[in-house]
Amino acid sequence: MALYGSSRRQAFRFGATAPALLSTFLRSALARPISTAFREERDTFGPILVPADKLWGAQTQRSLQNFDIGGERERMPEQIIRAFGILKKCAAKVNMEYGLDPTIGKAIIQAAQEVSEGKLNEHFPLVIWQTGSGTQSNMNANEVIANRASEILGHKHGEKFVHPNDHVNRSQSSNDTFPTVMHIAAATEVNASFIPSLKQLHDSLHAKSVEFKDIVKIGRTHTQDATPLTLGQEFSGYTTQVKYGIARINDTLPRLYQLAQGGTAVGTGLNTKKGFDVKIAAAVAEETNLPFITAENKFEALAAHDAFVESSGALNTIATSLMKIANDIRLLGSGPRCGLGELILPENEPGSSIMPGKVNPTQCEALTMVCAQVMGNHVAITVGGSNGHFELNVFKPMIASAFLRSLRLLGDASSSFEKNCVRGIEANRERISKLLHESLMLVTSLNPKIGYDKAAAVAKKAHKEGTTLKAAALNLGVLSSEEFDELVVPEKMIGPSD
Amino acid sequence: MALYGSSRRQAFRFGATAPALLSTFLRSALARPISTAFREERDTFGPILVPADKLWGAQTQRSLQNFDIGGERERMPEQIIRAFGILKKCAAKVNMEYGLDPTIGKAIIQAAQEVSEGKLNEHFPLVIWQTGSGTQSNMNANEVIANRASEILGHKHGEKFVHPNDHVNRSQSSNDTFPTVMHIAAATEVNASFIPSLKQLHDSLHAKSVEFKDIVKIGRTHTQDATPLTLGQEFSGYTTQVKYGIARINDTLPRLYQLAQGGTAVGTGLNTKKGFDVKIAAAVAEETNLPFITAENKFEALAAHDAFVESSGALNTIATSLMKIANDIRLLGSGPRCGLGELILPENEPGSSIMPGKVNPTQCEALTMVCAQVMGNHVAITVGGSNGHFELNVFKPMIASAFLRSLRLLGDASSSFEKNCVRGIEANRERISKLLHESLMLVTSLNPKIGYDKAAAVAKKAHKEGTTLKAAALNLGVLSSEEFDELVVPEKMIGPSD
Amino acid sequence: MALYGSSRRQAFRFGATAPALLSTFLRSALARPISTAFREERDTFGPILVPADKLWGAQTQRSLQNFDIGGERERMPEQIIRAFGILKKCAAKVNMEYGLDPTIGKAIIQAAQEVSEGKLNEHFPLVIWQTGSGTQSNMNANEVIANRASEILGHKHGEKFVHPNDHVNRSQSSNDTFPTVMHIAAATEVNASFIPSLKQLHDSLHAKSVEFKDIVKIGRTHTQDATPLTLGQEFSGYTTQVKYGIARINDTLPRLYQLAQGGTAVGTGLNTKKGFDVKIAAAVAEETNLPFITAENKFEALAAHDAFVESSGALNTIATSLMKIANDIRLLGSGPRCGLGELILPENEPGSSIMPGKVNPTQCEALTMVCAQVMGNHVAITVGGSNGHFELNVFKPMIASAFLRSLRLLGDASSSFEKNCVRGIEANRERISKLLHESLMLVTSLNPKIGYDKAAAVAKKAHKEGTTLKAAALNLGVLSSEEFDELVVPEKMIGPSD
Amino acid sequence: MALYGSSRRQAFRFGATAPALLSTFLRSALARPISTAFREERDTFGPILVPADKLWGAQTQRSLQNFDIGGERERMPEQIIRAFGILKKCAAKVNMEYGLDPTIGKAIIQAAQEVSEGKLNEHFPLVIWQTGSGTQSNMNANEVIANRASEILGHKHGEKFVHPNDHVNRSQSSNDTFPTVMHIAAATEVNASFIPSLKQLHDSLHAKSVEFKDIVKIGRTHTQDATPLTLGQEFSGYTTQVKYGIARINDTLPRLYQLAQGGTAVGTGLNTKKGFDVKIAAAVAEETNLPFITAENKFEALAAHDAFVESSGALNTIATSLMKIANDIRLLGSGPRCGLGELILPENEPGSSIMPGKVNPTQCEALTMVCAQVMGNHVAITVGGSNGHFELNVFKPMIASAFLRSLRLLGDASSSFEKNCVRGIEANRERISKLLHESLMLVTSLNPKIGYDKAAAVAKKAHKEGTTLKAAALNLGVLSSEEFDELVVPEKMIGPSD
Repeated sequence: MALYGSSRRQAFRFGATAPALLSTFLRSALARPISTAFREERDTFGPILVPADKLWGAQTQRSLQNFDIGGERERMPEQIIRAFGILKKCAAKVNMEYGLDPTIGKAIIQAAQEVSEGKLNEHFPLVIWQTGSGTQSNMNANEVIANRASEILGHKHGEKFVHPNDHVNRSQSSNDTFPTVMHIAAATEVNASFIPSLKQLHDSLHAKSVEFKDIVKIGRTHTQDATPLTLGQEFSGYTTQVKYGIARINDTLPRLYQLAQGGTAVGTGLNTKKGFDVKIAAAVAEETNLPFITAENKFEALAAHDAFVESSGALNTIATSLMKIANDIRLLGSGPRCGLGELILPENEPGSSIMPGKVNPTQCEALTMVCAQVMGNHVAITVGGSNGHFELNVFKPMIASAFLRSLRLLGDASSSFEKNCVRGIEANRERISKLLHESLMLVTSLNPKIGYDKAAAVAKKAHKEGTTLKAAALNLGVLSSEEFDELVVPEKMIGPSD
Repeated sequence: MALYGSSRRQAFRFGATAPALLSTFLRSALARPISTAFREERDTFGPILVPADKLWGAQTQRSLQNFDIGGERERMPEQIIRAFGILKKCAAKVNMEYGLDPTIGKAIIQAAQEVSEGKLNEHFPLVIWQTGSGTQSNMNANEVIANRASEILGHKHGEKFVHPNDHVNRSQSSNDTFPTVMHIAAATEVNASFIPSLKQLHDSLHAKSVEFKDIVKIGRTHTQDATPLTLGQEFSGYTTQVKYGIARINDTLPRLYQLAQGGTAVGTGLNTKKGFDVKIAAAVAEETNLPFITAENKFEALAAHDAFVESSGALNTIATSLMKIANDIRLLGSGPRCGLGELILPENEPGSSIMPGKVNPTQCEALTMVCAQVMGNHVAITVGGSNGHFELNVFKPMIASAFLRSLRLLGDASSSFEKNCVRGIEANRERISKLLHESLMLVTSLNPKIGYDKAAAVAKKAHKEGTTLKAAALNLGVLSSEEFDELVVPEKMIGPSD
Repeated sequence: MALYGSSRRQAFRFGATAPALLSTFLRSALARPISTAFREERDTFGPILVPADKLWGAQTQRSLQNFDIGGERERMPEQIIRAFGILKKCAAKVNMEYGLDPTIGKAIIQAAQEVSEGKLNEHFPLVIWQTGSGTQSNMNANEVIANRASEILGHKHGEKFVHPNDHVNRSQSSNDTFPTVMHIAAATEVNASFIPSLKQLHDSLHAKSVEFKDIVKIGRTHTQDATPLTLGQEFSGYTTQVKYGIARINDTLPRLYQLAQGGTAVGTGLNTKKGFDVKIAAAVAEETNLPFITAENKFEALAAHDAFVESSGALNTIATSLMKIANDIRLLGSGPRCGLGELILPENEPGSSIMPGKVNPTQCEALTMVCAQVMGNHVAITVGGSNGHFELNVFKPMIASAFLRSLRLLGDASSSFEKNCVRGIEANRERISKLLHESLMLVTSLNPKIGYDKAAAVAKKAHKEGTTLKAAALNLGVLSSEEFDELVVPEKMIGPSD
Repeated sequence: MALYGSSRRQAFRFGATAPALLSTFLRSALARPISTAFREERDTFGPILVPADKLWGAQTQRSLQNFDIGGERERMPEQIIRAFGILKKCAAKVNMEYGLDPTIGKAIIQAAQEVSEGKLNEHFPLVIWQTGSGTQSNMNANEVIANRASEILGHKHGEKFVHPNDHVNRSQSSNDTFPTVMHIAAATEVNASFIPSLKQLHDSLHAKSVEFKDIVKIGRTHTQDATPLTLGQEFSGYTTQVKYGIARINDTLPRLYQLAQGGTAVGTGLNTKKGFDVKIAAAVAEETNLPFITAENKFEALAAHDAFVESSGALNTIATSLMKIANDIRLLGSGPRCGLGELILPENEPGSSIMPGKVNPTQCEALTMVCAQVMGNHVAITVGGSNGHFELNVFKPMIASAFLRSLRLLGDASSSFEKNCVRGIEANRERISKLLHESLMLVTSLNPKIGYDKAAAVAKKAHKEGTTLKAAALNLGVLSSEEFDELVVPEKMIGPSD
């Protein structure tokens, strides 16, 4: 049996002729409640029926029918839709400076504002897997805004009193709008959500580093016992990783702040006026409070998405860091009785459906799963980014959605990990102390005194005989009891000597 | 400004105390309509409020609150939920053989059946990014089925008349149920949806291969003109790629048909009875009409997901094939006047928001974007698959969801590509013929007669002087006009000689 | 300063004119001893100087000069060179059937045999990073064999008594020979070296599984204490992973056994005779004792390397398995005093340059590094495999070399790991027993008796108070001392009950 | 038959006892000429035989025997060996400030200098696939320098007059030296070789962009005909991609300049003196003329290699850019008669072993193959980087070698591409002009005048009827002949209007 039944398919499937349309519609109607009336919309391919209560037009409708891929979960990310609202608002503003009828311009601004606020989300049904330029989502935005603006001005949907191409898309092409909304959405999310999540995690790790600064513990290299350090030092490594992660994503922002808008179809700016590109970047900057500027080379900005490959590389590095940190924390918190047991992690929920009382490092698990997905998305973005042809890269919706998904997941998982795990971590001081004093690697502090070879003999003897280092050292006669006690002091082993 | 406002967060955020709960709830309520009443559920962590109209229990609720990662788009795939319905139904059947009270057993079967049919989807709110064993989704299934079964038997929700652990999860652990539903969902989708989509594409490509069998065209190697072949031969290569793709995914099914069920917590089968594993695999096989069997080694089946890494490898290979095919088709269809122009692709929608009359190979674009994402997901699955520890791999929900997404996208995009592109491809015979006869690589058929070096001289001369091969050959005096005409016949160059 | 000085460049850099040549040569001569005399060779581009003591010809020389990429480490893998020897020998045999002069044919066979034995390796100087069809390495083989065969027949180098194209490459194209040698090299190495290494590892893991079958130990899920299993069961999971790995690579062999030979330039078989493809596959099969057959579709065989993407997917899965196994073994062997310490790994060398007496799981480290590289190579092969155009994929040398490197590294590292680690692993029975009896998860065996909720209370109480499960159970009054002793027996928890 | 015979194994295989040793040696001796005499060296594991003519010691010898993985091709990259020379020289200098006997110190400096110059390369036989900390290569450096320094001072090899650990490795651990040499090697190569190669490519692309600035050509989006641009503009996009690539790798250098040295075993700096870390970074900076500084957090510097993951991300982005550029160039240069044919690429060598006169874009092919490998190596580095445990990441040699290989290949291939392809690209002006004037997308310039819908009708009519745009426009009566001629001027379509 198929786990997904007929409901997996989009409801609207009508082709050219009405009877077939209605038949399909009626079959679909059994699956879920949908619009029951239609109006006709037209584009250069001719007329097509569109649900009466939806603002989209003919091109959106064609895409819905031609790209039945993945279902509702695969819709274009909301951030892209909202960024279209921002962009179309700014375009109308600038177009008014260049002669767009102010009545129409203002109506577009109002409609676009609603899109930017997410109020018209239900009118954006298209999936990621459409044309690779995002043309259909650009037209979706144009159509919805045109119909909504027409409505505001007292005209009917589909009448094109406000025209999706000639007015809303004026001086624009999908080829420059879509990269522009990609950059707006990405840079906005990085600033508004992702970096704050990382900072929160950084601060929490740093606080732990300070809290644990006096707890001397065994170090581990190659997973084997090594010389001691403090638990605070161990956490300072994690803190630094996250700190650098923030620097890494920040370093990529200058190229994300470059907007393609003004390049139109192939980067030349055909059908725009001189200065349009600079003005619209300034308008977007004002609208978003972020330092967007016009791309210095529009050909690069349309034909490549290296900026996304680069920023995704920063996310990939951050995922690498967080994988290490979360892995360490779950291993240091392993037990409670048969693991390393140095950390006590917060208990948030029952851990097992069969083992009563079990508590698991679930936040580490969610985070590391996210890290794996981010690494995978990075490859997807790389493959897409490398496959542009001539004047256009046509992997845009995939690149945008994979990047935004990585950004959201990594940010949210960092927050969750911080809030539900890191913040509540406690040190198991008793266990830490017990392990520390059993370790053979304290022998390292004897090197400067007796040399590497003799020190090795001491450690090997203690290991083989299951005794203490001191017993082995005295037995081998390499130093006196007093000398040993003076040299082998874990608390003195956590930094360089004077 | 943030593109995602407060609505991005899950509505339910209440912690320990009711007032804070309600306050959070009220704030959330502004964002979207949700349940307005609660009931108390309990687990081993104590009581917790749950929306009154939802069937889930305490552990589901805790997960909702503790894993606010990614929002609704990130919900556990529906196929996993439905597979849980299948599994829990089968488990109840087998448990009844081993002594489960038949009244309770039957109620569980009825409730689980509803889950398997997707009727209770709204009661499965958890996201992928939870505990890496999928315990919380297993408990979600246990809780929903327990409450629904209790309801069927006239008992109240939360009363645990049918107990989520002791009855619904009887003889099971998340550690064996989750891998089991992963395998059920994956193998079912491969058979019910993915392979049929590939077969449809295969048949359509094969039909084109037959249709085009007599059209001799220029071959291209290194993107440069080469010796001729038929367009049918070219499409036969694509057909073979898809044919082998079907074989590749089929070859991995034997390992996907192995079910972990019966391994319980660590693979030993503790708390099951002998034979439970075999019986439950048989029950699932009967329910799904697929040849599921019990895994020969349960330790492997819990601790590793190599079977998914392997099957994802098959998807990765298929993505590689489809990327090649779609790329070729868009390049062969490039133009209409300044490209290769050998194929005429169906025109499905306006291609540009700025360039009137433009038509683009959008189906190729959607498909190649999907291929890139599948390649990325394969890396995610590989990373997750390699990071298991001891008796359990805890990247299960990520592995399952990435695999199911790849499967769905690749299947749907193949169908869309077949239906909206391949099926309607036409050969531009005039253009093909024109290019063929201009080619210099027809010279290759002179090799056996005049040798490689002289043939090269002919081609170079024609290239340099912009003349025909024949003119160059005669001019160089390497053969007569008659000899040339007899040897250089494209139609004779499309196969070995007798 | 540059770590690589002028010596990084190839020595031979002479272009068209002798003086510049000599000047370059003299400068290079300072860096390392090279040939001091030259002869002239010619191809369709004209004459070029070649070192007098080398058998290669003009086209090889041009490649040397045009592709100064990576230096000597990047030479075409030896297996490819040897496979060329096999192929050219077989081609001469079959060509003799079709009319090749037997004197020339026999000389080619003798020369090709020497290539297949590695005796002429020094005459194959080209790097991987050349033309993507491998044409230059095919011509290298043709030139070396032609010159060597001429020599055998008493003729001078460069004289082309035996002609590289017309005789050695007769009925062949780089476009079919290179994929053919890729398949010969890959399938041969899989059989002769890789699978035997995996089998050795499998057998050794299996032997350990048997050796450890009675050692009951604590299980670990989520890195946390779980219910017990035997150490033998744990190793049986690893054994099964490797067993399936062998099955996985074997399952891909049928497609690796398909040879492109006979397709010539674009897959049509132009300039071959009917039956040539079948005969040459049979000759290669006889020569190698492997079931090579002619590819059913030559267009696919030239234009795609899906078979390599698929087989690399099997290596990727095996790398995933080995990463898990090696990770577990190093963690189970962690310590000696502050880790899990359940396994005692062989001590092969001093582990630290600063910490005396330290011993590390170095074999696990080498193996996991290899696994990471194999995963990376798989992505490289996937990217290359997806980027073919029309009748030819031009990522052939990269695909072949990455695959052969993965194969060699994974095989060698498995052997090394088996020999220097697995074979010598001992169980630390004392430590294993101590941990087992401290675990709280033995409580799971109480579920069937007292239910999940009460069992959880027992475990939580023991955990909180640091007491034993039994003390907690008695204290809570959930069962008697006798009942506890009868139920909580680790040795009874390692399988289903009757 | 195995393509690799017995010669694939390292020659030295002697274990504990001399007879077995010699027997193995003699067998090996048949395969290739090696050392015929041995001396005894010792480490904490006891005595071992070492080839008499080699400077390495016991630990190197053990590694040779224990890690027979991959053969000679897999040796630790030379840049790492040379960086060890730099580091050990600097360490001796600083150690002398802290009390190291100046006689010994100076001998170490002299010996280390020789290592840094590559003079002792033959004494570094170890492969990448050894312990993951690089301890064995660090000891190889210590042993070679100690023996060479002893020799300088008139002492015998193996006598340890200069001690590898106590003198050469003084105040150091593999755990800080290996990351230090990784950073030295990487940053040096980036500056000395990689960036110069990219700059050369940038300059050459820029020169072409200027050369082609007046050539108006058809643009292509979605591989379909689009509005015009100049060939110079097209190349300016490529130029910008490379320019940003240089910025990207440069942006990562600050973190590559951070040296771990002074962290010793676990990051604490045990067994160093205060200030050692700063002094040694300063000494390395002086030696290399690069702004190396001591890492601000040594725990991060040992336990993670995020800096490499980040820099590899920059290489991955650059690979993405170069893949796009090389792909475009080969497609624009496709033909000569049946492709796009807008560019004429330099002819460097015969392109085909079967098709006489064929010339292929081989430099594009070498470069794109390299790009695929770089993308793969990036995944390998990511996987390695994410798998550190506690105080140490033990994927160091893999990370370092994959990164250095990517760096070398990408730099060399860029140089080769620049020199042998880009520099010689010519525009096929006649062909470009012909295609331009046939294009239908010139219709776009009618939008502002007649609107999108009417313009579409014109283009569609012309396409359908195979006529010119003008004929279609006049026929539809949408504008006059004069208007058409004034509006549709490709030369006016390559920028915004005033």
